[in-house]
Amino acid sequence: MPRVSEAHLVARRQQILEAAWRCFARNGFHATSMQDIFAESGLSAGAVYRYFPSKLELVKATAGTITEGVGEIFETIAHADPVPTPAQSLDMVVDTINRLTMAREPDLSKIAMHAWSEAIREPEVGAVVKEIASRIRQGWLDIVARWKAAGYIRTDVDPDDVAGFLYGVMVGYIAQRNLVGDISAEQYVNGFAALAHGRR
Amino acid sequence: MPRVSEAHLVARRQQILEAAWRCFARNGFHATSMQDIFAESGLSAGAVYRYFPSKLELVKATAGTITEGVGEIFETIAHADPVPTPAQSLDMVVDTINRLTMAREPDLSKIAMHAWSEAIREPEVGAVVKEIASRIRQGWLDIVARWKAAGYIRTDVDPDDVAGFLYGVMVGYIAQRNLVGDISAEQYVNGFAALAHGRR
Repeated sequence: MPRVSEAHLVARRQQILEAAWRCFARNGFHATSMQDIFAESGLSAGAVYRYFPSKLELVKATAGTITEGVGEIFETIAHADPVPTPAQSLDMVVDTINRLTMAREPDLSKIAMHAWSEAIREPEVGAVVKEIASRIRQGWLDIVARWKAAGYIRTDVDPDDVAGFLYGVMVGYIAQRNLVGDISAEQYVNGFAALAHGRR
Repeated sequence: MPRVSEAHLVARRQQILEAAWRCFARNGFHATSMQDIFAESGLSAGAVYRYFPSKLELVKATAGTITEGVGEIFETIAHADPVPTPAQSLDMVVDTINRLTMAREPDLSKIAMHAWSEAIREPEVGAVVKEIASRIRQGWLDIVARWKAAGYIRTDVDPDDVAGFLYGVMVGYIAQRNLVGDISAEQYVNGFAALAHGRR
């Protein structure tokens, strides 16, 4: 086998991943076959399988792209001094969702919507979605602890409840943007800020 | 044609609708054919088509069942005296979602998840989902006006932002229950209450 550079491997992997994203965004997971992805990427079955042995591996890699980006913003918020208010934090997270998904082509948030539907039917996809949810909630848990210290929420509140609620708020933002489309990130966060404690 | 009672027509229509729900919950919209629904209902094509000329009509009837139930709880909240706080209102809405969807068999919230995925690909399904979203937001708008009068939110807030946010919160609840499953209605509303103005 000829030696190839690390950069080449990374670029080829990304090329396949983006071809898969175009297929998933167009037709969902269920109706996309590995053959569709060979055709869309312009590569042979062998070339694709070398990087992604199955459709599930592509789903996992897509999930990895999203969690990595979201993980970074949680790190930023958790270490900001002073801690951003709940509304400011949601603003930062929603901006990151936009940047990672809706602002790019294909829009990864559409793929997320298909993944959620598929997760109900396919336990393996369900496990990937659960893993992302768990990481996102962990990100919020770290911030909730700081909100307690800053007086934004009461100290006797169960942090898991707040983290779960805010995960729902993120999912609801993605769904609403895709389903109704007439609410901006700013309007959504304004709606939250109107109900929440602390400065916008 | 023999004369049939109104009650018979209603019962037969519901029988077909519930057969369709079982198919949709199991396989989603896209992978369910009218043939599947004939088989599941135990009725002939002619009998089913008499009530539902297409799969889209079944989707619309399913949407109607959900909006009717949700509409009732918004009426109740909008006319309650004094107006329930934001957290109390969300509690009532989430309880209604549970009763209308997760507490019955088949679980209509699973069908909603599939409908959201399909809405991105099929404009006709998208229009049905948008219509539901519009009604739900209108329900919240009436309540937001009363929250302003009661001092729960500032009078200069754009009510559409709050209604859109709360629609997202509802969608996020349904998604999280189906995707992660480990957060109860009470915990979700507690998470909101911890961040929001007004008594739980």
